[in-house]
Amino acid sequence: MNALHRQRLNRLEQALKEKNLTQMIICDPLSIWYLTGVSVEPGERLFVLYVRTDGTLCMVVNRLFTVEDQDIPLVWITDTDDGIGILAQQVDKTAAMGIDKKWPARFLLALISKNPDVSYVNASECVDGLRAVKDSEELEKMRISSAINDRCMEAAAAYIKEGMTEKECAAYINNLYREAGCQGPSFTTIVSFGANAADPHHRPDDTVLKEGDCIVIDMGCIKDRYCSDMTRTYFCKTADSQYTAIHDLVREANEKAEAMIRPGVRFCDIDRTAREHIEAGGYGPNFTHRLGHMIGLEDHDPGDVSASNTDIVREGMIFSIEPGVYLPGRFGVRVEDLVIVTADGCEILNHVDKHWKVIG
Amino acid sequence: MNALHRQRLNRLEQALKEKNLTQMIICDPLSIWYLTGVSVEPGERLFVLYVRTDGTLCMVVNRLFTVEDQDIPLVWITDTDDGIGILAQQVDKTAAMGIDKKWPARFLLALISKNPDVSYVNASECVDGLRAVKDSEELEKMRISSAINDRCMEAAAAYIKEGMTEKECAAYINNLYREAGCQGPSFTTIVSFGANAADPHHRPDDTVLKEGDCIVIDMGCIKDRYCSDMTRTYFCKTADSQYTAIHDLVREANEKAEAMIRPGVRFCDIDRTAREHIEAGGYGPNFTHRLGHMIGLEDHDPGDVSASNTDIVREGMIFSIEPGVYLPGRFGVRVEDLVIVTADGCEILNHVDKHWKVIG
Repeated sequence: MNALHRQRLNRLEQALKEKNLTQMIICDPLSIWYLTGVSVEPGERLFVLYVRTDGTLCMVVNRLFTVEDQDIPLVWITDTDDGIGILAQQVDKTAAMGIDKKWPARFLLALISKNPDVSYVNASECVDGLRAVKDSEELEKMRISSAINDRCMEAAAAYIKEGMTEKECAAYINNLYREAGCQGPSFTTIVSFGANAADPHHRPDDTVLKEGDCIVIDMGCIKDRYCSDMTRTYFCKTADSQYTAIHDLVREANEKAEAMIRPGVRFCDIDRTAREHIEAGGYGPNFTHRLGHMIGLEDHDPGDVSASNTDIVREGMIFSIEPGVYLPGRFGVRVEDLVIVTADGCEILNHVDKHWKVIG
Repeated sequence: MNALHRQRLNRLEQALKEKNLTQMIICDPLSIWYLTGVSVEPGERLFVLYVRTDGTLCMVVNRLFTVEDQDIPLVWITDTDDGIGILAQQVDKTAAMGIDKKWPARFLLALISKNPDVSYVNASECVDGLRAVKDSEELEKMRISSAINDRCMEAAAAYIKEGMTEKECAAYINNLYREAGCQGPSFTTIVSFGANAADPHHRPDDTVLKEGDCIVIDMGCIKDRYCSDMTRTYFCKTADSQYTAIHDLVREANEKAEAMIRPGVRFCDIDRTAREHIEAGGYGPNFTHRLGHMIGLEDHDPGDVSASNTDIVREGMIFSIEPGVYLPGRFGVRVEDLVIVTADGCEILNHVDKHWKVIG
């Protein structure tokens, strides 16, 4: 554990105190890596970091895994141990317990039944708040990840041709990521043609690209643990003027939202700005999702750019701005960038031209 | 929802009654698909199936997703709704609530705070018990998935050569899966050379294969939703006689365990048989994990072949038998097959020769 991790743990203790908590169980392997530098992929096995505001901590970890750090007190368990019983002995049974929002019910219910007189509260915002604001090293990794994503998007747009299937195009993109030394895509690469694009979460299938189809490419990679994520929408050979008008509307919504980002602005107001522009164009009901999401160690980091998030934007945060319009059975368009909040505005991480164009 | 799904739901209701439960919340998208045929990948969003033993059910699903089934009562929510508040209104507040073991704490803690007077219990074994025993259509898909895995293992063994990196070999295997029409690997493909193999969960890195290295290949694919999983251990060009003796020991442990599998045998006794053989060979402390795990829609389906599982084996179950010996800093070996429990024994799904051999 180096000075950076000690600093992050100290900040976590501070955040817990501000919530009147003295202890927390963290299970998200990415959060544990962020806080300690220890990297374990536990699958379905118990793996937690237990943190107390008096500075004590321990890590409960299965002997199957390797932990190189020598500073963190380790509580080793095996597949045949009652891991939760062992954890229940480590914690303070007299105080409320902060719980990682991702902790599966099988562990939480077992701990509640071992230590039933404790109150359990979701304390993830204490960790999420730290992870949301990137330090300079993280910012640089996010820039590199998005720079790779830009190059791969340009290469994909040059590659895609009428007659190809969505799956072929997605495989091409995934291969570009591999060649660029990425750990992989940061989510399942989306390539949607024509009516398939009306489902924002469509998975690439054997649909063949035809002239006139829209082409939604929503793609991101993981490089040195940090994620990129970008969407561009093209048209195959020819473009229907109704569709290009919608594309312009969506792009303008993206640009209007990005133009207002600076420290102190509320996330819900950024969402409102993009949504009002699309509503004014007559497609409000067709913009069916939130405007964006935080990103970092995960493609969908905690926190979103939506009507329900009244938090304010802070310098060092990174999130997506991705308005979309979906016409079921016909067409979809989405334009997405990542942005870093700077002292007086934002830095847009994606540089691929976002106007509609014909390819293929 | 077809007759198969109605039958599975009826069986789930029966299983709940046997646990004196009248209701359950299921969140695992694979379980929901298994029970209803509805396929949604909700990411971090709320998506649950609520089942009552009086035959009523409903599905809470975000409007972002598409649900084609017309029979299941749907409760649509959006990103800005209080989804748990809406779910809390649907459930019986006067009876104990069965909970899916995978349900994240953020949802469970929110539901507990909405409906605090209900007792919450992990009821996943009701679903897991159904998923563990495969019907004939599922068995056939499992055979096909493992047949592909056999072919890809043979191709990988023929491909791997001294001087290649683990990453190159893993990429080759993943590409074979793609070419075979698989949805992907069923877990991160493991290719471990030499001392790296002492970590059973080692991830392929840039380590280069050298003469004398052991080569552990642990690989599986997903085909038509069903998973395969197999491990073979080879040696590069020459093999140290201590290591080949350990390989023989591990293979024999695998074979002894497989030979005793039939309905009525306890999982812990299968584990015991393999473990005793390795202990007798002097490597008991180096066999650091359970003998196997259930498999089906997930590579690690619920339930394992371990000292702590006193359940008995039933016809139609499928699980792995994967003894291993690990010498930290030096070497590792693992030999793994999948087996289907038949009326009077078991069918081994993997046909790749499991004796040690030199390749490369």
